[in-house]
Amino acid sequence: MTELTESEALRRALVAEKHAQATGLLKATGIDCWLTFCREGSDLLLPFLTGNEYIAGLAGLMLFADGSSVAVVADYDASQVNGVFDEVHAYSLDWKEPFLEVLQRRRPQTIAINYSESDHGIDGLTHGLYRRLDETLGGLGHPVRLISSAPVAEVVRAAKTPAEVERIRRACEITQRIFDDLTGMLRPGLTEVQIAEIIQERMQTYQVGPAWEAAICPSVSSSKSARGHVAPGTTRIEAGDGVAVDFGVVYEGYISDLQRTWYIKKPGETTAPAEFQRQFNAVRDAIQAAEAVLRPGVTGREVDTPARKVIESRGYRFSHALGHQIGRTVHDGGLLLGPDNARYADRTGGTVAAGMVFTLEPVIGPIGLEENVVVTETGFDYLIPPQRALYLV
Amino acid sequence: MTELTESEALRRALVAEKHAQATGLLKATGIDCWLTFCREGSDLLLPFLTGNEYIAGLAGLMLFADGSSVAVVADYDASQVNGVFDEVHAYSLDWKEPFLEVLQRRRPQTIAINYSESDHGIDGLTHGLYRRLDETLGGLGHPVRLISSAPVAEVVRAAKTPAEVERIRRACEITQRIFDDLTGMLRPGLTEVQIAEIIQERMQTYQVGPAWEAAICPSVSSSKSARGHVAPGTTRIEAGDGVAVDFGVVYEGYISDLQRTWYIKKPGETTAPAEFQRQFNAVRDAIQAAEAVLRPGVTGREVDTPARKVIESRGYRFSHALGHQIGRTVHDGGLLLGPDNARYADRTGGTVAAGMVFTLEPVIGPIGLEENVVVTETGFDYLIPPQRALYLV
Repeated sequence: MTELTESEALRRALVAEKHAQATGLLKATGIDCWLTFCREGSDLLLPFLTGNEYIAGLAGLMLFADGSSVAVVADYDASQVNGVFDEVHAYSLDWKEPFLEVLQRRRPQTIAINYSESDHGIDGLTHGLYRRLDETLGGLGHPVRLISSAPVAEVVRAAKTPAEVERIRRACEITQRIFDDLTGMLRPGLTEVQIAEIIQERMQTYQVGPAWEAAICPSVSSSKSARGHVAPGTTRIEAGDGVAVDFGVVYEGYISDLQRTWYIKKPGETTAPAEFQRQFNAVRDAIQAAEAVLRPGVTGREVDTPARKVIESRGYRFSHALGHQIGRTVHDGGLLLGPDNARYADRTGGTVAAGMVFTLEPVIGPIGLEENVVVTETGFDYLIPPQRALYLV
Repeated sequence: MTELTESEALRRALVAEKHAQATGLLKATGIDCWLTFCREGSDLLLPFLTGNEYIAGLAGLMLFADGSSVAVVADYDASQVNGVFDEVHAYSLDWKEPFLEVLQRRRPQTIAINYSESDHGIDGLTHGLYRRLDETLGGLGHPVRLISSAPVAEVVRAAKTPAEVERIRRACEITQRIFDDLTGMLRPGLTEVQIAEIIQERMQTYQVGPAWEAAICPSVSSSKSARGHVAPGTTRIEAGDGVAVDFGVVYEGYISDLQRTWYIKKPGETTAPAEFQRQFNAVRDAIQAAEAVLRPGVTGREVDTPARKVIESRGYRFSHALGHQIGRTVHDGGLLLGPDNARYADRTGGTVAAGMVFTLEPVIGPIGLEENVVVTETGFDYLIPPQRALYLV
């Protein structure tokens, strides 16, 4: 038997964890089979199902409640599923025959298929493919009930396994290391673009890529500039300015999403000006207010509320959600930590569960502070130590 | 009135051409409205409809048979459609109200929506979104007939307008310029990887990106290596070897896909060895056999057949299709120039039409020769002059 490469062993271990998670969910929800029907990489959950990003041909990936797994794929896609599915049927021309053979043999009654009305990240089944599937199942000879796979797919994406959490933690550690390097290199006279270039050079050194669109990762904002998802500009940092950086990296397919804030002292200053410090403290304290409630079983709203109250009690306000999930992507979908208003209501009423990884990022004016936390069985852990004090340069 | 930037003017002109083309098709097919319903960039035809790649929120993009156009988009997406749709309704929370208002006012009876059972490139409607659309249309108060937009979408993608052809031609010209630069730099002792690096450096000089996955664009093959979509390797080119390069670039969103073949002479040689030359001639002559039949109205098979016959009559064979369409992507979908066999039958029976842009690429062993042609009203044109003789170095 050939020995596996390290990356192949990692891939198989990660997929085995996700398949086991799915099996548990299938049992719990009474679903016989989770079928992901896709082509041309049209399903965003492929990395969890196969350990790879892409499948070219028409494919039926099936996980059954008894823990077994079957993939029907085009012959040129067989390498994408080998080693992680128990049975692989590689067809050269006709997918229907092996696909129907599997279903006739296994006889699932309730099949969860890969669509969701509310969440695009688990809505990989196109309507054209649905029509082909529906027509094909007519030839099965026994009735099946098709339902949305959302109850399973949502959790498989959101509830990170230990191997997934470890990758996100590594991404956070590298990000913080770059922040620390930057602290040693920040000086008056640099423009936002030049600061971004320092970070980009560090990314090359540590051999990591940006966690989101490179043009705004990092996003570097002088306290004289507008905040938000904006590209670094030509504004020059001077003594007496704040600098906020929103930045993350990818490590083995998983990302970090952190913000840190610096203050560039004027000659003679030992601290930041009172108002800047007051804004920083309000953001930091809002995060600590969220800490007090974050644990499995609370709703997204229940975590957002105390943080928002701290910000408002200090005379500030912020309109966006306190936090979003991260994982393979920077907005990993599903539950948000956010308010119960028209913009967010659909996505903040759900329940926090162990294994979810969230950002915590209240915002006030020039302050950027964003932490990444994983929910545990009893509470939560910071993936890396949070920023509790301004970085003074 | 603000003056438009050059790129914005180009965008608007391109989209206006595509909208006009769609209007003509709607009239011809008796469809009242072409509705593209999407979110999170889930429709690959967005560049033709909006001139941009991406729309984040839930969007309904409607073209009507009278030539008018209406977009219902989230407020943060308004800039994606402004200037190219007659009416833009930017909603902040509820898309249903403006969407139903438009349909109640315009009262289309037959609406073509963005799905296709056979072609993923025009199957952008997810099944979850279809369910939301179907439910929403129930509140319309009058019946509508929903059909696949394939008859319109296929042609809008395939039949290039003059502005689109011009972009592909520019991509071809830059590619050929890089091939010509390479001819001056090829020498014995270079590895495939080193030749790829020369091409990558030239791409930087001309400020263009690769037309497909960077790891295999360019694909550089010594006549001692396997051919196909493979990454350049460590094989060293020596005198007496052939070199085939498969390569293309992106120019303003449109790509080229060309192959060229070099022969590195041994001391004293003035030509390539007889068998290598014979193989080159067979490929070149096969392309010329396709030229003799390529024009609007013939099927994809009718173009493939004479080319394949030439290859076989010289004692060789090739299994893949003679040519595929190119445009915004390297496999632009729809009709192929290929044989009537189990692998290709679905995609070669259709009819060649003016404005389609094809590759012509028969393959024999170490020879790489691939041309890009546009079908005209009466025949076809090469986008750049074809390679008719080996490049001798």
